[in-house]
Amino acid sequence: MPYIHLRLAGELSREQKKQIVEEFTATMERVANKPREYVIVNIEETKEENWGWGGAMLDEV
Amino acid sequence: MPYIHLRLAGELSREQKKQIVEEFTATMERVANKPREYVIVNIEETKEENWGWGGAMLDEV
Amino acid sequence: MPYIHLRLAGELSREQKKQIVEEFTATMERVANKPREYVIVNIEETKEENWGWGGAMLDEV
Amino acid sequence: MPYIHLRLAGELSREQKKQIVEEFTATMERVANKPREYVIVNIEETKEENWGWGGAMLDEV
Amino acid sequence: MPYIHLRLAGELSREQKKQIVEEFTATMERVANKPREYVIVNIEETKEENWGWGGAMLDEV
Amino acid sequence: MPYIHLRLAGELSREQKKQIVEEFTATMERVANKPREYVIVNIEETKEENWGWGGAMLDEV
Repeated sequence: MPYIHLRLAGELSREQKKQIVEEFTATMERVANKPREYVIVNIEETKEENWGWGGAMLDEV
Repeated sequence: MPYIHLRLAGELSREQKKQIVEEFTATMERVANKPREYVIVNIEETKEENWGWGGAMLDEV
Repeated sequence: MPYIHLRLAGELSREQKKQIVEEFTATMERVANKPREYVIVNIEETKEENWGWGGAMLDEV
Repeated sequence: MPYIHLRLAGELSREQKKQIVEEFTATMERVANKPREYVIVNIEETKEENWGWGGAMLDEV
Repeated sequence: MPYIHLRLAGELSREQKKQIVEEFTATMERVANKPREYVIVNIEETKEENWGWGGAMLDEV
Repeated sequence: MPYIHLRLAGELSREQKKQIVEEFTATMERVANKPREYVIVNIEETKEENWGWGGAMLDEV
């Protein structure tokens, strides 16, 4: 039951999301021996201005 | 201090959210003996196209 | 694809976990009309000393 | 690699976000001895009606 | 700033973790055009008995 | 209802946890105008070997 949560700044196209889901799932199947029907991926697209890194706002770095 | 995070594809009506909060809280109180004033529920409604399952996009399954 | 993550201070018996899984799943099925085979519950048991509330440590409140 | 996720009901101004990022990062650096370039902060602004507390909806409390 | 959180039932060897980190990072770089030095992966290994699926405990399915 | 989840590699002393809880709470109160009795902090201490950054394992960087 691997649950993968990807949180990133900005947006992805549907094509990118699909590719990410396929590749993450393939990695879990091949490397961790998890049946693919158990692998769940959730993508969370967020605003850049909601991230800080090293004490600064990500969109000002 | 039970913190319950529900992440789901799609949206819920206010009535559904209210009912879920009530039932989850009642479960924690009755089954886990937690005082209800400590139980927090947070609901996150997400787009279906942001989920993958078994390597496929949830809205194509 | 409802994914429910319960994070709480302390531990639960297997019987309690089982009951929580059953009740949370039933709530999602009945209230949110989600097929039960899509409902995932994950329970995270944590140390009390890793929680703060209102600025104080939970185990000192 | 401290990763701080702040989830709150309502919205914050950019100025507030910036201040929070600065202070959380400073705390991690000073108290936990973590290099500031490793400290990541992510802020998630959510609707009040998606929170329950003590069995009631947060916006009805 | 993609942050990937993998939560799974059971444990992984160090070699598996390393391979997963490499592959997830490569996917983010190639598919989402994210600089690899921004990609963070966190793996959380959990007990099987803390998962429910479809209303049953994962280790009884 | 600000909920702050801090996930970090390594462990903290009780004194450090207490100080972090106090400072994070004070920041939320002063900067975001949140009543302190609503501020929850949860600290998750994890193994260094469960983190990847830039495609490498954190404990090999």
